[in-house]
Amino acid sequence: MATKYQTTHEVAYYECDINQTMTFPAMLGVAIKTSEEQSAQLDRGPDVIAGYGLTWIITSYHILVTRLPKVGEQIQVATQAKEYNKFFCYRYFWLLDEQGNELVKIEAVFALMNPETRKVSSVPDEIVAPFGSEKIKRIKRYPKIDPITNGQSLPYRVRFYDIDSNQHVNNAMYFNWLLDVLGYDFLTSHQVKEVTIRFDREVAYGNLIDSHVQINEAQTLATGDTLPLQTLHEIKIADITYCEAVFSWITV
Amino acid sequence: MATKYQTTHEVAYYECDINQTMTFPAMLGVAIKTSEEQSAQLDRGPDVIAGYGLTWIITSYHILVTRLPKVGEQIQVATQAKEYNKFFCYRYFWLLDEQGNELVKIEAVFALMNPETRKVSSVPDEIVAPFGSEKIKRIKRYPKIDPITNGQSLPYRVRFYDIDSNQHVNNAMYFNWLLDVLGYDFLTSHQVKEVTIRFDREVAYGNLIDSHVQINEAQTLATGDTLPLQTLHEIKIADITYCEAVFSWITV
Repeated sequence: MATKYQTTHEVAYYECDINQTMTFPAMLGVAIKTSEEQSAQLDRGPDVIAGYGLTWIITSYHILVTRLPKVGEQIQVATQAKEYNKFFCYRYFWLLDEQGNELVKIEAVFALMNPETRKVSSVPDEIVAPFGSEKIKRIKRYPKIDPITNGQSLPYRVRFYDIDSNQHVNNAMYFNWLLDVLGYDFLTSHQVKEVTIRFDREVAYGNLIDSHVQINEAQTLATGDTLPLQTLHEIKIADITYCEAVFSWITV
Repeated sequence: MATKYQTTHEVAYYECDINQTMTFPAMLGVAIKTSEEQSAQLDRGPDVIAGYGLTWIITSYHILVTRLPKVGEQIQVATQAKEYNKFFCYRYFWLLDEQGNELVKIEAVFALMNPETRKVSSVPDEIVAPFGSEKIKRIKRYPKIDPITNGQSLPYRVRFYDIDSNQHVNNAMYFNWLLDVLGYDFLTSHQVKEVTIRFDREVAYGNLIDSHVQINEAQTLATGDTLPLQTLHEIKIADITYCEAVFSWITV
């Protein structure tokens, strides 16, 4: 049974957007900090991982939103490194309200990379052991991300303050590029319910990226099933895709 | 004697840049949060101020840096609404290390504005009374900000996530535009020692601003006095200046 680690956090005004709810970069920042604290406590901090000639990277997130945390709210942040297979570690995060009700669930897929060769390494059992993660055979599949066929885009330059103290573009930053392109009217009249995002390549300081988006309206299929309003996203430099995502929304 | 309010804060990795030290938006975010907490405690929260048909604006900061807070450091954040005159309130913030040594001192000049008319109001004594601020006659002067005569600039679009839960562009955000234009090499080889910044007009969502900068190398005057390396900054839209700043630096 994987060890759970839990902290509390008061949502600050500067972590929230105009909707008075927490932004994705803020939620992911707080979540990842919790996992760093757990890792340090279990003697698996970045120095120990560097001792294996490796560093963690995050390859994807799958996020389910019941309700976004609000300005001034006291939340609990829990995390558990639940499972791993040969190449991937599956870590879960929960943002909970004061009563312990789930607000947001985040599944993060971590991998280990050799920072010199940029090659992904298999996961040494002894790195994972203290977390009590279950070893599994299968590779988890998340909802597929359809390619954009009819989109629009805006350019963004990667700025100095998009790089964090971990020396690379904080992948929480991608959310700002992904969402900004939807514009004020969309972002103040819709609430996100689900996100699947995959990071394919790392963008670097100074890069000029294009954030592409396609809006697929909600629809009822011939089968009677309904599809929610979805937005498809791609971060590209020229024809190369660096990041893909699909967001599901409700209108408010 | 003005009432002091103090909290503690652990510096998170996502509050720091590649230099492993806290960014200006993060420091100002934490500082302003402290003043909001003090105001709430003294029954002078935003609802009470709105009851007077007013809202706080910040017109300038003067910042002295002994040493920037580092990733993982436990700091203390103290604030005191020290003085006020007819139109301005002078609030001080101190970021201190665990031993209470001053790391950063921030003087912030607040004013009260009618959000409908956008006109600055005189400061009602009863708003300030619970803070124990001293009433003064004079208007404080900060180092003057020379105009740019020989600069360069980069354009920045005001993005959705530059607006915070207070419904306007968080003025801590201006620091990212001001500094990004200096570039990676400058920002990783210099440490800031002093900042004077003045906010003249509010930028709005969707604006395309130009961040202008001029670098004045350190020099020894004929008098034997030395001037530090300084950078002059202006945020402009076409010919209109929205924000001006001067930063003093040491080379590291």
